[in-house]
Amino acid sequence: MSLIVQKYGGTSVGTVERIEKVSEKLIGWRERGHKIVVVVSAMSGETDRLLNLAKAISPRPDPRELDVLLATGEQVTIGLLCIALEKRGCPARSYTGGQARILTDSAFNKARIQDIQADAIRADLDAGRVVVVAGFQGVDESGNITTLGRGGSDTTGVALAAALKADECQIYTDVDGVYTTDPRIVPTARRLDRITFEEMLEMASLGSKVLQIRSVEFAGKHNVPLRVLSTFQEGPGTLITFEEVLEAESMEKVLISGIAFNRDEAKVTVLGVPDRPGIAFSILGPVSDANIEVDMIVQNVGRDSTADFTFTVHRNDYERTLEILREQTVRLGAREVSGDNKIAKLSLVGIGMRSHAGVASRMFQALAKEGINIRMITTSEIKISVVVDEKYLELGVRALHEVFELDQVS
Amino acid sequence: MSLIVQKYGGTSVGTVERIEKVSEKLIGWRERGHKIVVVVSAMSGETDRLLNLAKAISPRPDPRELDVLLATGEQVTIGLLCIALEKRGCPARSYTGGQARILTDSAFNKARIQDIQADAIRADLDAGRVVVVAGFQGVDESGNITTLGRGGSDTTGVALAAALKADECQIYTDVDGVYTTDPRIVPTARRLDRITFEEMLEMASLGSKVLQIRSVEFAGKHNVPLRVLSTFQEGPGTLITFEEVLEAESMEKVLISGIAFNRDEAKVTVLGVPDRPGIAFSILGPVSDANIEVDMIVQNVGRDSTADFTFTVHRNDYERTLEILREQTVRLGAREVSGDNKIAKLSLVGIGMRSHAGVASRMFQALAKEGINIRMITTSEIKISVVVDEKYLELGVRALHEVFELDQVS
Repeated sequence: MSLIVQKYGGTSVGTVERIEKVSEKLIGWRERGHKIVVVVSAMSGETDRLLNLAKAISPRPDPRELDVLLATGEQVTIGLLCIALEKRGCPARSYTGGQARILTDSAFNKARIQDIQADAIRADLDAGRVVVVAGFQGVDESGNITTLGRGGSDTTGVALAAALKADECQIYTDVDGVYTTDPRIVPTARRLDRITFEEMLEMASLGSKVLQIRSVEFAGKHNVPLRVLSTFQEGPGTLITFEEVLEAESMEKVLISGIAFNRDEAKVTVLGVPDRPGIAFSILGPVSDANIEVDMIVQNVGRDSTADFTFTVHRNDYERTLEILREQTVRLGAREVSGDNKIAKLSLVGIGMRSHAGVASRMFQALAKEGINIRMITTSEIKISVVVDEKYLELGVRALHEVFELDQVS
Repeated sequence: MSLIVQKYGGTSVGTVERIEKVSEKLIGWRERGHKIVVVVSAMSGETDRLLNLAKAISPRPDPRELDVLLATGEQVTIGLLCIALEKRGCPARSYTGGQARILTDSAFNKARIQDIQADAIRADLDAGRVVVVAGFQGVDESGNITTLGRGGSDTTGVALAAALKADECQIYTDVDGVYTTDPRIVPTARRLDRITFEEMLEMASLGSKVLQIRSVEFAGKHNVPLRVLSTFQEGPGTLITFEEVLEAESMEKVLISGIAFNRDEAKVTVLGVPDRPGIAFSILGPVSDANIEVDMIVQNVGRDSTADFTFTVHRNDYERTLEILREQTVRLGAREVSGDNKIAKLSLVGIGMRSHAGVASRMFQALAKEGINIRMITTSEIKISVVVDEKYLELGVRALHEVFELDQVS
C-alpha cells in the first residue's frame, strides 16, 4: 500500500460530470489499496469570474480581501468532489487550506507555504477516508486566508506530499506527460517516461506549461517524486525525478530531453555604450526599477571600445522598456537603442549535455543548414537557448527534433 | 457613539453595484461616529446556484460537504464588500463564520449557534475598522464548517449583536419595515414604528416574511433591539422591541398591530370519530410520523357522541395527509375523511387584544358583513386566526384593516 497525493487542475474538474469522473478514478485507486489525498483547483473559469467581480469594484482590490474571495473557488470544488465520493459510498472528507493547516506567510495573493500540520489528514487516511484538500490556499499565523498565486494548486500538492512523506505526487492535467517538444509542431514528438527536476525546470520556465515552476522547485527541494499524467486518458505519464536516481537506474543516458520554445519575449539592444565597469547595471537598473523582468542577457564588445548590450523582456513590457531606455540614451552615452518583438526563443534541454561536447555546434549547424540566423545565444549547464526570428520557430524546432533524434527512444 | 450590527440580505448585495451602494451607506454610519459590524448574505441567486451544482451530483448531498459548498456564497460577499470599503479608504476586515468564532453544534445544514468569541471583532472595532461577517455560517468544535439553514444570516446578525452587546441590530431588506398588512392588498396599509417581539413572531410565522422567525426568537431571548429597514430607501423602519419597554414608553396602547395571512395551507377534516380520550393522538400520530407539520387544530362535538376533528397542513402535504388518514378510517372508526386545499388563513395580531374583550366579535362581525363564511377559528393570547375560502382572502384582509382602523396612527 502506498500513499499518493493527486492533484487535479481546473479543466479536470471543470464540470459536475468531470468531478464525478474524477471521483470514480479516486475510488479505483482506493480499491487498489492506496491511501489517497486529492488536491483540487477551482472549476475552470471560476477564478476568472471571481477576479472579474473584484475588478469591477476596484482595479487594485485589497489583497487580503481578494484572497478571501478567490479561496471560495477551490472550496466549491472540494465540497462537490466529496459529495460525489460519498454518493458512491466512499468515505471522504474535505479540507480548506485553513482546515488542512497549510500555514503560509502573510504575503496575500502570493503567499509561500511555511509548514503543514497534517495530523488530522493522517488520522482521516488511517480511518480509510479519501482526503480532499483545496489547492492554492492556506492561512497565516493570525488565521487570515491566503492564496499562493496562480498555479498554486500544484504547489499545494507537492507540499502535502512532502509533509505526508507520500510515495508519489501525481499532477493530473490535460496532457498525458512531458513531451520532447510540442506535438502540434512536431508530430513525432515523444512522451518522456522520465525527466530530471533540473530539465523540467528548464522546460517549464521556457514555456512548456505543464507544471508550475514553483512546484517543481519545491518538489526538488523536498525530494518528492512528481508524475504528470492525463485526467482524460490512461497511461503512465512522465515521472520527474532526481538526476542521481536517474543515473543509477538507467546507465544508458539521455543526451537531450527536449526542445522548449517561447514566443512571449521581445529583444532590446543598446548599441555603442562605453565599455566600462557598471554598464550592465546602469542599463538594467532603470528597467528593473519599473518592475520589468529580464530573461536572456548578452553583452558583446562592439566597435571603438564600446559594447553592445542585448536582453529580452516579456513582449507586454517591450514598448515600456524601449521608452525607459530611450530616455536614458544620453546618460548612458549610448549610440542607439533598438529592439525587435518578432522573435522566438528555442532551447535545447538535457542533463546529458553537461558531459558531451559538440551539442552546441550540432545545434548551430542544424539551424544554419535551414538558413536560420541566430540573433542571441545563452547557455547553461543543461540548456542552450537561441533567439531567432519568430517566423523560423516551427522550422527550427523540427530541425532540432530531427537532428537530435528525439523521436527515438534512446 | 453606539455599536450597531447591520445585516444585508441577498437582494441588497445582489450585484457589484449594490455592494458598492452598501459600502457607501456603511461609511455614512461610520462617519456619524458609530461602530459598525455588518453581516451579509450570499448574492441573490448564488445559494441556489451552489445547491443546484450539489443536486446535479446527488439528490441527497452529504450534509457536511454541502455546508462546505454553501458557505462559499457569503464568503464571496464579505470579500467584495471589504474591497469596496477599502477602495473608498475605509478600513475594513472580513470574517468568515469560522474566523468570527461563531461556534455552533454539528447539525450540518441546520446548525444552532452556541457561542461567539468576539474578541478579535472587538479589537478591530476599537481600531476603527468596519467588521464584515459572513452570515449563515459557523464552525463546530472540531473546526468543521456549518450552516444555519436558510435565512440564517438574520440569526447571525442577532447573535453577534447579543455577543457584542450592540445597541441595535438592523436588518436591511427590500421592504422599509413591518406593515399593518400587505400593501399590495390594502394600499392604505401603514408601516408600524414599533411592534413587540411576540407580535412579530405571530406576524412572521403567519406569512409576513420580513424576518426569519428564528432570529426574532433569538433576539427576544437575548434582549436585542431589532430594527427592520429598507436598503434602498431612507427611513426609520420598524423597531421590534419588548412589550415592557413599549408599555412604559407609550401609554397610548395599540390594540391591533396588523393582519397576517397565509395561503399555503390546506384543511383536513375527520368526521364522526367516536368521542373518546386519545382520539386526537390517534389521528395526528400517523401524520406526524410522516414528518408532516400541523398548524391549526380544532375539535368539535358532532352528532351521536362522535367528534369532528379538523386541522391544517402545508398545501404540499395535503394529498399525502388525506392518503394517510383514509388508510386509517376504519381503525379510527371515523365516518369520513375530507379536505379542502382552497383555503386561506387570516390572523389579527396585537398585544393589546389580551386586555380587550370584543376584538373577536368585531372581527367575526366584519367578515359576516361581507358574506365571508368562517371555516375554522383558533385563538391565542395575541392573535385570532380564521380559515376562510381562498377567494375571500383579499376582501377579508381589507374589511378587517378598515374595521380596526389600521391606516390611522393610534
